[in-house]
Amino acid sequence: MKLSIEPHKRVWADLTLRPSGQDQAQESIVVNILQEIKTQGDLALKKYTEKFDQVKLSTFKVTPEEMEYAVSKVSEDLKRAIIVAKTNIETFHKTQLKENEPVVTMPGVLCWQRAKPIEKIGIYIPGGTAPLFSTVLMLAVPAKIAGCKEIILCSPPDRNGKISPAILYTAQMCGVTQIFKVGGAQAIAAMAYGTKEIPSVSKIFGPGNSFVTMAKMKVQQDGIAIDLPAGPSEVLICADDSADPEWVAIDLLSQAEHGVDSQVVLVTDSEAMVKKVEECIKTLLEELPRKSFASEALTHSHAIVLKNKTDQIDFINAYAPEHLILNHMEADFLVDQIYNAGSVFIGPYSPESVGDYASGTNHTLPTSAYAKAYSGVNIDSFMKKITYQKLTVDGLKLIGPIVEIMAEAEHLIAHKLSVSKRLAKLK
Amino acid sequence: MKLSIEPHKRVWADLTLRPSGQDQAQESIVVNILQEIKTQGDLALKKYTEKFDQVKLSTFKVTPEEMEYAVSKVSEDLKRAIIVAKTNIETFHKTQLKENEPVVTMPGVLCWQRAKPIEKIGIYIPGGTAPLFSTVLMLAVPAKIAGCKEIILCSPPDRNGKISPAILYTAQMCGVTQIFKVGGAQAIAAMAYGTKEIPSVSKIFGPGNSFVTMAKMKVQQDGIAIDLPAGPSEVLICADDSADPEWVAIDLLSQAEHGVDSQVVLVTDSEAMVKKVEECIKTLLEELPRKSFASEALTHSHAIVLKNKTDQIDFINAYAPEHLILNHMEADFLVDQIYNAGSVFIGPYSPESVGDYASGTNHTLPTSAYAKAYSGVNIDSFMKKITYQKLTVDGLKLIGPIVEIMAEAEHLIAHKLSVSKRLAKLK
Repeated sequence: MKLSIEPHKRVWADLTLRPSGQDQAQESIVVNILQEIKTQGDLALKKYTEKFDQVKLSTFKVTPEEMEYAVSKVSEDLKRAIIVAKTNIETFHKTQLKENEPVVTMPGVLCWQRAKPIEKIGIYIPGGTAPLFSTVLMLAVPAKIAGCKEIILCSPPDRNGKISPAILYTAQMCGVTQIFKVGGAQAIAAMAYGTKEIPSVSKIFGPGNSFVTMAKMKVQQDGIAIDLPAGPSEVLICADDSADPEWVAIDLLSQAEHGVDSQVVLVTDSEAMVKKVEECIKTLLEELPRKSFASEALTHSHAIVLKNKTDQIDFINAYAPEHLILNHMEADFLVDQIYNAGSVFIGPYSPESVGDYASGTNHTLPTSAYAKAYSGVNIDSFMKKITYQKLTVDGLKLIGPIVEIMAEAEHLIAHKLSVSKRLAKLK
Repeated sequence: MKLSIEPHKRVWADLTLRPSGQDQAQESIVVNILQEIKTQGDLALKKYTEKFDQVKLSTFKVTPEEMEYAVSKVSEDLKRAIIVAKTNIETFHKTQLKENEPVVTMPGVLCWQRAKPIEKIGIYIPGGTAPLFSTVLMLAVPAKIAGCKEIILCSPPDRNGKISPAILYTAQMCGVTQIFKVGGAQAIAAMAYGTKEIPSVSKIFGPGNSFVTMAKMKVQQDGIAIDLPAGPSEVLICADDSADPEWVAIDLLSQAEHGVDSQVVLVTDSEAMVKKVEECIKTLLEELPRKSFASEALTHSHAIVLKNKTDQIDFINAYAPEHLILNHMEADFLVDQIYNAGSVFIGPYSPESVGDYASGTNHTLPTSAYAKAYSGVNIDSFMKKITYQKLTVDGLKLIGPIVEIMAEAEHLIAHKLSVSKRLAKLK
């Protein structure tokens, strides 16, 4: 970690910079893949699956037999854990289902708003070394609560043409309607434009590598909604001397182990704490199978000493972390001052990993300072809101002249006449 | 209007197609403008303002003197109308401010969510023939209610270097913090990346021509949030024999007058109604200063006869109109079956223009079938939601083993250890 002691506000912009990198070459590869899936459908999907996943598939849909096998392969312990996590995620996300009461804005003018589920959504779950069944929970559970009718899931097959049993088990349990063994930019294209086998959806959710991310950005330009712009995962921990340095260290590492481009930041008023945390990191690294990822992520991470509490708060809001851990005596005071963050973990007994898996909050969160303008995934992400108005004759008589004046001032005469022609007959 | 009688579902896809067109040449122009503003700031802004708006400006910020002059130029009638509209918009949007209660998902595990305002937002208001002060109301009023601290507004100057008095008056009244005389893709770039004079914002709102729309799509890829993907405005009217054909006709025209690429659709069970509406359109067109726009928009618009009510509902949901007028005896029954629409106008006395200006609902709505996945602008558009969790020792002891099992199954051992290291010390 790079140590900065009382950095001047002038250099904060550098300290809040995230490791990044999208290249032009990648963009043109993705554009080509999207175009091929659009025009050649399943044929192109098969080609890319053979190329990137190194397996020949004649069909992508997961069969009932594969599902049965997967369910038998997941241990009872893991099943029980997944069910507890699912229940907590349901409990929390259900609190977000709120309707507003209709309101009479003027006598005879009734207005209201209703949330309706997005009918068809797609979930992308990456393959690779770690089977991210927890992300299935985080996306399929709120989709189901919202009332989405079709919930499609795509995940790349391994070289034997299989998807991890834990992913399949979780998907089935959460009510995913169809699962397809297809990955990468080609999976995003299939869900965006549809193929003979894979239906198109209106919104695509889920993490992925830089090709997947690029493909999501591109289909968004064609009007397909996406959950969030994505970047490498990150955590900022604000700790004072009350914090156990070992706990701070392992929390930093649990973010750093995600990948070499993860970023972890420690903000503290105590230089001694930085030293103690760094010592713990050295020891703990040895326990980690993903040590090499974590070590490299630490090289572009920061330890920042700021004595003044207001500076700490200002820095956190400027950084706008995806995850914020307040391992601090005054956590409850600090939390009220934070307005830019994805998810906040308060106090010493709230490690990020509880939110990553099971507390009930969502783990799909805005990275790269997007928390300044974006929410993490929540029930709203799976719904859209329609507004309604209904006027009585008297309501129209009352508001009509207002509308006529405004429409005329905007030179939109048909707008004006749509009121005038009615009022003329209602006299 | 093109008449389709009982069109087969096979051809619905064609009937729901919108007139469109973004060209490659435009894309490269916009990319260049963005790049120049990014690197040369105000200097490039001046260059493009001279080129596109044909006026030389030494500074962009609207001065207090200009504001005073504008306020004196707006008629008292219009001021009163704007104030009534503002009050209704406030009343409606305030109903959308709702907080969720914290929830204990497991004993000792407390989770909650809070909405926080986006600190800095930008509003773009197009110039041209019609001064869209109504859009200022629709964007600045909810921004203020949400609690946004900086509300920047950009609008192109006319050849005398001025912005329409009605826009300036409305902006000031709604609490816009700074107004700049700059338009087009260059205005979007300035708000996205910031210049010496114009501050950068986290989210950009507002309509514009195809250059502005393209610029918004491009800055979105750089992580700047935008309100909505934009397309030409549209209305779908569902009318039965109870509707006054003149009212249907003028409602269609009030959408068609927006521009040549607007689309209007009439869905009815009655061929006789189509004929009557078309006759009324002929007569009414003569009253419209924007007759040429409206006439051309009508050439790519549709009148669709569907006898079966279920077919009507299915077609409306497939079309997903920005504006939906239910001028129908059974409007209240129909409205419950609609799940894809931007804003719905119910019954004969609710023309779209009341919602465009003054009823209280927002007029920034999803076009081009984006209503399948997007909401119109509402209070949520100006806020983002943060989630929080706080665990007690007992809470961590209860949920910890669940997290350990799941983290291990995802091969994320530091995630597991962030719980285990705590539990070890808490025994």
